[in-house]
Amino acid sequence: MTTATSTVPRRRRRGERVLYQRLADELVGLIETRTLRSGDRLPSVRTYSRQKRVSLATVLRAYQLLEDRGYLEVRPQSGHYVSATPVSRAPSPSIPRPSFTKEEVRIADLAWELLARVNDKGMAPFGIATAAPEHYPTHRLGRIMTRVIREAGAAGLVYGSPVGHEALLHQLARRALAAGLTLRPDELIVTNGCTEAIQLALRALTRPGDVILVESPSYYGFPQTAESLDLRVVEVPTDPETGASLEHLDSAIRRTKPRVFLTNPNFQNPLGFAVPDAVKREQVALLARHDVAVVEDDLYGDLYFGETRPAPLKAFDTTGNVILCSSFSKTLAPGYRIGWVAAARHAGRIRQLKLASSIHTNTLAQLTLAEYLSGGGAEHHLRRLRQAFRAQVSDYAHAIARLFPQGTRVSRPKGGHLLWIELAPGTDTLALARSALARRIGIVPGRVFSTGDTFGHCFRLNCGFPLRGELEQALETLAGLARSAEG
Amino acid sequence: MTTATSTVPRRRRRGERVLYQRLADELVGLIETRTLRSGDRLPSVRTYSRQKRVSLATVLRAYQLLEDRGYLEVRPQSGHYVSATPVSRAPSPSIPRPSFTKEEVRIADLAWELLARVNDKGMAPFGIATAAPEHYPTHRLGRIMTRVIREAGAAGLVYGSPVGHEALLHQLARRALAAGLTLRPDELIVTNGCTEAIQLALRALTRPGDVILVESPSYYGFPQTAESLDLRVVEVPTDPETGASLEHLDSAIRRTKPRVFLTNPNFQNPLGFAVPDAVKREQVALLARHDVAVVEDDLYGDLYFGETRPAPLKAFDTTGNVILCSSFSKTLAPGYRIGWVAAARHAGRIRQLKLASSIHTNTLAQLTLAEYLSGGGAEHHLRRLRQAFRAQVSDYAHAIARLFPQGTRVSRPKGGHLLWIELAPGTDTLALARSALARRIGIVPGRVFSTGDTFGHCFRLNCGFPLRGELEQALETLAGLARSAEG
Repeated sequence: MTTATSTVPRRRRRGERVLYQRLADELVGLIETRTLRSGDRLPSVRTYSRQKRVSLATVLRAYQLLEDRGYLEVRPQSGHYVSATPVSRAPSPSIPRPSFTKEEVRIADLAWELLARVNDKGMAPFGIATAAPEHYPTHRLGRIMTRVIREAGAAGLVYGSPVGHEALLHQLARRALAAGLTLRPDELIVTNGCTEAIQLALRALTRPGDVILVESPSYYGFPQTAESLDLRVVEVPTDPETGASLEHLDSAIRRTKPRVFLTNPNFQNPLGFAVPDAVKREQVALLARHDVAVVEDDLYGDLYFGETRPAPLKAFDTTGNVILCSSFSKTLAPGYRIGWVAAARHAGRIRQLKLASSIHTNTLAQLTLAEYLSGGGAEHHLRRLRQAFRAQVSDYAHAIARLFPQGTRVSRPKGGHLLWIELAPGTDTLALARSALARRIGIVPGRVFSTGDTFGHCFRLNCGFPLRGELEQALETLAGLARSAEG
Repeated sequence: MTTATSTVPRRRRRGERVLYQRLADELVGLIETRTLRSGDRLPSVRTYSRQKRVSLATVLRAYQLLEDRGYLEVRPQSGHYVSATPVSRAPSPSIPRPSFTKEEVRIADLAWELLARVNDKGMAPFGIATAAPEHYPTHRLGRIMTRVIREAGAAGLVYGSPVGHEALLHQLARRALAAGLTLRPDELIVTNGCTEAIQLALRALTRPGDVILVESPSYYGFPQTAESLDLRVVEVPTDPETGASLEHLDSAIRRTKPRVFLTNPNFQNPLGFAVPDAVKREQVALLARHDVAVVEDDLYGDLYFGETRPAPLKAFDTTGNVILCSSFSKTLAPGYRIGWVAAARHAGRIRQLKLASSIHTNTLAQLTLAEYLSGGGAEHHLRRLRQAFRAQVSDYAHAIARLFPQGTRVSRPKGGHLLWIELAPGTDTLALARSALARRIGIVPGRVFSTGDTFGHCFRLNCGFPLRGELEQALETLAGLARSAEG
């Protein structure tokens, strides 16, 4: 799609017409795909001729041709601009949207499709695990960031430390304490969300071809990240109330010699369970005994429905075998992309990998969150958020019981904002997700949470948005589709 | 460092004293390392006893012990707080600073050491490649971001598209045009700086064990990123004026069967050359012929000292074989961490890897840069920046000619803000860098730009800061050290 003009000198005479037409065609392409838009200024004739290595006359003729056709207009003393009313206008989404209609589900394509539509107001947001914008402290964070921009000045713009800003590291260690966790500040590294944290942890611990264990079902991002690192994923049968059983874990370890157990013990995505403390303790001991490292995704840990925050696995770790990953993407600001990893004895390696992967993390977002967390408002916000999610999850669960076919089973999450729905055996929820998407309803079919076909009749439903008005209707529509799907 | 209390029930009676002392010790440790600081509130006795799975009495006794020792104070109706004047206070940098005193240079350690000190006002900033804060449009970007925060509202906080925000993608494609480059918006992906862009490109193109070619010397981040992906780096002899010669490139290709040529053709770091257009064209053709992909780092491309911006290699690419990586870290806002990759036919794979690596890139920073670039101010800023860097580089070069030992050679960069200094053969610039660091002067010794010892007598000098006052003195000190080093 780029144009080299290496043959210009030789062909100049015979090719002059071809050349300016080619230039003109290229520009029309840019205007029709809205790469160039009404009011955009084109490069000056001089600059463009230099850059394209063609004569001034060629550029001028190309521009004139486009002017004649109504694509460009000349503003005296100023230059050539894309017309306010270009002749033709392509529909052209500039972001490609692969549609997941292929027979084989490609997890990446599906996640892509759903994320690409995450801000599409017309979509019922039962797919991607995120919450209604009003659940985030937009105004408070905005006010803080505005102040941070003013006070930090150039310090917000220049390079920062690869491990993260000291103010945020302090808040992370301080907050961990209230979750029963003593973190050393020098084992913490701020990352671009929890996904970068997990990716760095896996890269520090594994080599291509290694096996990692995950729960079954588990968050579809896990195999996606694993696949991108050439790791083999083995699923451990998982109890929907208590997590991966010790027996299954033990047997998987002996059978597959894994390097890592990648787990989501608190309010697991998609099932919503919290592994009981007693099981956590035994899991940690078992894994340490077999020298299998633990990468713990504690993304939802603060969103508990009960009295207290469940401890992370890392609170039971006495050997430095557990790497804890988390972020603020489910509680404060998904778009800030701020996560962290508490890397235990692997901190040195993970710091190197962070430096080699993205140097450091956005400074202003870090400073804003540090400031926010240092005030009392954060705990108040989290309390309200937990209450809201508990109520919403309950609303959705009741509505499903009312609307969906007899026999539909629904998970009982202990926190978070996700439900796992099990339709009649044999129901194809991939087909259901497709017909739902056609009606602008996003859900995530069970098959992307596992490599096998065990969950082909299940799907995940996001309850991050209050169930009112259009969303109630959408859920009814979905229930109707589920009835048809069960046939 | 984490504390599991799994043995509590069995040992309660005999261990009660041990237990509250252990708790107290742990908290003292947190206070002395400044993880907990003056005024920080401790978890309530109830919460902490739940979290630590110990009795209320144990927590109370631990808190009382610390109160007695002056570490904590009680505020009635409110709780326990770290005292304003704690008894002891450790020096405790909370960010670890490995010092590069080992015999073997570890690139990562050195880069780490320099980056950790990047905002240390007392350091002469001749090391890390960055510019004086006043060179960045801090106020303008701050005003825009403040407005963006207000106008975007929740849209700045919620999840965004994995490829990047549409407004920024549009500006990137529009600006590329002025560099003689026609990019399809759908081949662009916004990344966490140029380093993530390069990392994603390499991951899309290579498998562990593959060979990649780099210039010699080349940016020390290249082998660091390559090593993190288990790639083997082969250096191509590089002319300090024209880059990797075709003969050497051809011979390296035949000898090592590389997958990728990772190159920095415009104002190469550290040498500062721009590969002439004719050589660029031939390089692109040669590499395409041998099916060796090109990953092009165009980070410095906008910082030209001449009349026009040199074209990137990608402008000569007719087969979609060149992946272009860049960012705003050298021109607008290092701390925003906004880069991009123009991924040619590899866009699909790189989108997947981006999703699996960090989901998407900070939204507010993207929106702010898009808005900034859409105005006329950006070109004005860049013009001034180029003038400033040209003047600064010239100032440093003249000062070096005046101050450094006879026979010192200095590069003649065509853009950017880096100089490459060659001292007398046999001079050990690693030792020089060490003694400079002891005097709080940062430079990057030649040995980190190459695996061999070819550049052991060279070093890189950053000219991003105006050469005045203390920096002039620092350069004189450095010259003195260089004289001693040449002995």
